[in-house]
Amino acid sequence: MSSAGTREALRLLPAEELSRLETEFRRLLPLPLDTEPHLLGALRDTLDHPGSLARAQLAFGVASELGMASASARKLALAVEAFHTASLLFDDLPAMDDARERRGFPCPHVVHGEAAAMLAALGLITRAYERLWQVFSKLPPAISMRSGALVAECLGASGALQGQALDLHFRAPPGETGAREVERVALGKTVSLVRLSLVLPALVAGATEAEIVRLELLSRAWGLAYQGLDDAKDLLLETHEAGKSTARDTLLGRPNLAVALGWQPTLERLAGWLSAARAELGALRALRPGWSRLAGLQLHLEAELAAVIERLAPRAEAA
Amino acid sequence: MSSAGTREALRLLPAEELSRLETEFRRLLPLPLDTEPHLLGALRDTLDHPGSLARAQLAFGVASELGMASASARKLALAVEAFHTASLLFDDLPAMDDARERRGFPCPHVVHGEAAAMLAALGLITRAYERLWQVFSKLPPAISMRSGALVAECLGASGALQGQALDLHFRAPPGETGAREVERVALGKTVSLVRLSLVLPALVAGATEAEIVRLELLSRAWGLAYQGLDDAKDLLLETHEAGKSTARDTLLGRPNLAVALGWQPTLERLAGWLSAARAELGALRALRPGWSRLAGLQLHLEAELAAVIERLAPRAEAA
Repeated sequence: MSSAGTREALRLLPAEELSRLETEFRRLLPLPLDTEPHLLGALRDTLDHPGSLARAQLAFGVASELGMASASARKLALAVEAFHTASLLFDDLPAMDDARERRGFPCPHVVHGEAAAMLAALGLITRAYERLWQVFSKLPPAISMRSGALVAECLGASGALQGQALDLHFRAPPGETGAREVERVALGKTVSLVRLSLVLPALVAGATEAEIVRLELLSRAWGLAYQGLDDAKDLLLETHEAGKSTARDTLLGRPNLAVALGWQPTLERLAGWLSAARAELGALRALRPGWSRLAGLQLHLEAELAAVIERLAPRAEAA
Repeated sequence: MSSAGTREALRLLPAEELSRLETEFRRLLPLPLDTEPHLLGALRDTLDHPGSLARAQLAFGVASELGMASASARKLALAVEAFHTASLLFDDLPAMDDARERRGFPCPHVVHGEAAAMLAALGLITRAYERLWQVFSKLPPAISMRSGALVAECLGASGALQGQALDLHFRAPPGETGAREVERVALGKTVSLVRLSLVLPALVAGATEAEIVRLELLSRAWGLAYQGLDDAKDLLLETHEAGKSTARDTLLGRPNLAVALGWQPTLERLAGWLSAARAELGALRALRPGWSRLAGLQLHLEAELAAVIERLAPRAEAA
């Protein structure tokens, strides 16, 4: 359940730093010319379109705020982004979301074949772990172990994989039951990757336990809000602009908070999550003033909620 | 390009140790009941059929020979086996080898769907890395970094993924060119996993550099021999027993040493690799007598070569 292209590019870092991240993303893997051509093509196409690097920006911001050297912070940040990118390659396959385009370009599986897309995704995952290792190897064993366990928790069968499986086989009725299931999907798919972008770099770069707890709560609130806003925008786009019932019918069978709950309760939940996130940010700032640099994502999400409310206004008046 | 079921179960460890490995393989992942049912089913079916655990047996043998505690050696060994098992789940998908059965049971993608099979494979990979981490965290940083790099080299786009991509898109003509391409596939797919089973545990458990070099050469020789014997058996089975041209025609388009070179040169190469492996084993035994425990695989492969030669004898007389 992706909505690539519908979200404005997120800018959390200074332009120069974002551009370095982008350059390093493009060079994430060495691509020797004797690489099998389909695999090479799928990897090249993927690395050529870095997207907004939202997760890498967050992770880099957290790690460098805590004093991690830029080179290591970039390694960690791009590892997180590589996991996310690999998950998109899998999600877009015919057996999953069956997408044809991503970031305005044909999906690698459309151009180079499904096998090449899967192998490219596995190549990104392998590289991501290698990069994480380079960073983790220098940590005290206890932190390194805990970091490894966090990665497994976020990416494994209790995290992102569970979220994707629940998403694909979603069958809940509307109402509270549906909303609970929608939240389970978001906790698996979206919150897990936000945790990886916030909590992992914090752990690795030596945040205090109090900060870790706040970042966990912030990840949850942001992840749920982020996914709920995506759901809302998908639905608005389908029913308002596209006006085609086919896509909406498909959407009705997918996890979508606004479909499950209707608009008013959805807006209330979104506002609730964003308010919780704002409180966590305040608490974090009290612990370390530099955490104010995370405010960019909060403002971005609040602006998105305002835009959703504005688009719904004519309906509310009509009702 | 698998020939599961055609190879005799390999027994390199005492029955009790093998049975502990098997028990731990079956419990490799916690499978909470709230796991999405398709994902749960695919994981359960996979863990219920451990196969011969050849790679885990090798890895455990190497690590424990070097004095690693059994619990850690099992973790490492089962991580290697989990990577291998994940690769089988991917290889069997319709977009790859399109297999329907594995280890005498329907493939997970046939029963639970392709998405569930992929997610289960990713679950195994995530778990494997977590286990490796638990072992690596206790190592000196330099060894830990080197171990991480070895894993990436074996599993990544220059190792197993490259091998699988070359395998799927194999288009070489018979003769020397074909044989070189067949060898590239085997180096990627087969040798990489043997390196992971021999060299990785050796590195982690503190082998000397001299031993590492020998184990690298042994991995290469055993991997090439193992794959070449698989190729030979596939071809013998197709033309001799099955007697059906369909399967053989398919095989003619796949990387197969005997198809590329014909029988006599193939037998010579197999004998050459096994003789190189025997020499490396001798050199290893001179460095540390305990390496003799690796001889089991050598004997197994030599017996397989003898069986292939025996089955070819009537043809040689006829020629």
